Amino acid sequence: MNSIHIVSAFDGDLHYLANKLATMGGHAERMVDQAVAALVANDAVLARKVTEDDRILDEAQRDIDEKSIVIIGKRQPMASDLREIIGAIRIAADLERVGDLGKNVAKRVLAIGSASQPVRLSRGILALSELALVQLKEVLDAYASRSVERLSAMRDRDDQIDAMYTSLFRELLTYMMEDPRNIAPCTHLLFCAKNIERIGDHATNIAETVYYIVTGQQMPVERPKDDRSHTLSSEKLKS
Amino acid sequence: MNSIHIVSAFDGDLHYLANKLATMGGHAERMVDQAVAALVANDAVLARKVTEDDRILDEAQRDIDEKSIVIIGKRQPMASDLREIIGAIRIAADLERVGDLGKNVAKRVLAIGSASQPVRLSRGILALSELALVQLKEVLDAYASRSVERLSAMRDRDDQIDAMYTSLFRELLTYMMEDPRNIAPCTHLLFCAKNIERIGDHATNIAETVYYIVTGQQMPVERPKDDRSHTLSSEKLKS
Repeated sequence: MNSIHIVSAFDGDLHYLANKLATMGGHAERMVDQAVAALVANDAVLARKVTEDDRILDEAQRDIDEKSIVIIGKRQPMASDLREIIGAIRIAADLERVGDLGKNVAKRVLAIGSASQPVRLSRGILALSELALVQLKEVLDAYASRSVERLSAMRDRDDQIDAMYTSLFRELLTYMMEDPRNIAPCTHLLFCAKNIERIGDHATNIAETVYYIVTGQQMPVERPKDDRSHTLSSEKLKS
Repeated sequence: MNSIHIVSAFDGDLHYLANKLATMGGHAERMVDQAVAALVANDAVLARKVTEDDRILDEAQRDIDEKSIVIIGKRQPMASDLREIIGAIRIAADLERVGDLGKNVAKRVLAIGSASQPVRLSRGILALSELALVQLKEVLDAYASRSVERLSAMRDRDDQIDAMYTSLFRELLTYMMEDPRNIAPCTHLLFCAKNIERIGDHATNIAETVYYIVTGQQMPVERPKDDRSHTLSSEKLKS
């Protein structure tokens, strides 16, 4: 979105997509932030608000999809302009999923209800979400500035998120083993943690799309896409 | 893909995408089928094969993405042809995720190891996966034949999947409460069940894309995207 560009109708189209995505990004960040706040404070009213807000992202995604296809059909863009548009479709899909994951966390707040949960666990999930939100913010900034310089730092943070999730997973299982009354609420917390870990993955997907938009290339080096909690066997957990 | 069409280079391009997607679809189905078979039989060798097979879907998705963008740039397609190509990009993304979910089930087979699990639970997960695979097969058939007639039946089956998942979720929690030694393996089974339920969601996404390719419209009527397990509060589960 270089200001040296001659402002044309096509630039206007691309601006529309970029602005819409920025709004979607801010909305997705807020949903996740509020869902986790509702979880930590056991705030059913806030949780309900988040579940209702999800509709906005669904509509925004549909709008970006439709608009993108109209733009491609009308302007017949080549190379880098085409990458911008296909990239917008991809990023909108990732942000819509982030909203879904935030909504799912919010819904679980209502299920967990007043079941007492150790403060340490809430803090763990809060810390995990803070890291995931930094990822999301960084990648949306990278998209806004069309810059790939800071994208590689995201991978390290993604590793941190995975490690934090795996340790939370282990801790949650320990609580479940200590007292059967913890099992149902901790299971919901497990899924909340998993949802947040997935938000980190979507941020990484967006990073790959930004890299593709800017360079026209696939982002190099395979990254591990999964958390490592699946390696925690029953044997290890019992010791 | 009407045979009355004049066979042009562009038709060849569209055929390439459709064939590649059909291959991806078959591969994704097989991965899920084998992952669940490995889970039921506790077959580590098969589970490892599935985790390695995921690479093939990743590469196929990348190929479809790149090819699609080249086709749009070269052929400047309009309306329905453009929908075909954008649709292919979307379906490839869903199939790649189905592969990821299958891979995640396979990885958990290794974590669960020889921990004894009630036969009924394995059967429950097997039944869930059979339903999800029917969904996937139906929607890939609908894509191959560009037909929207049977898509509405998919919604009912998606409701069945959600109901079955919710009942499995409840049963798994009961086992966890009965014996703490069940907690770790049953947690992995919970995530396996959730993964399979998500495969059903991806089949529904693909149905929406097929509808869009064929009609140019968004599929009508809001569908519930989530399972209902999040409504199972600790109170209800204790009774």
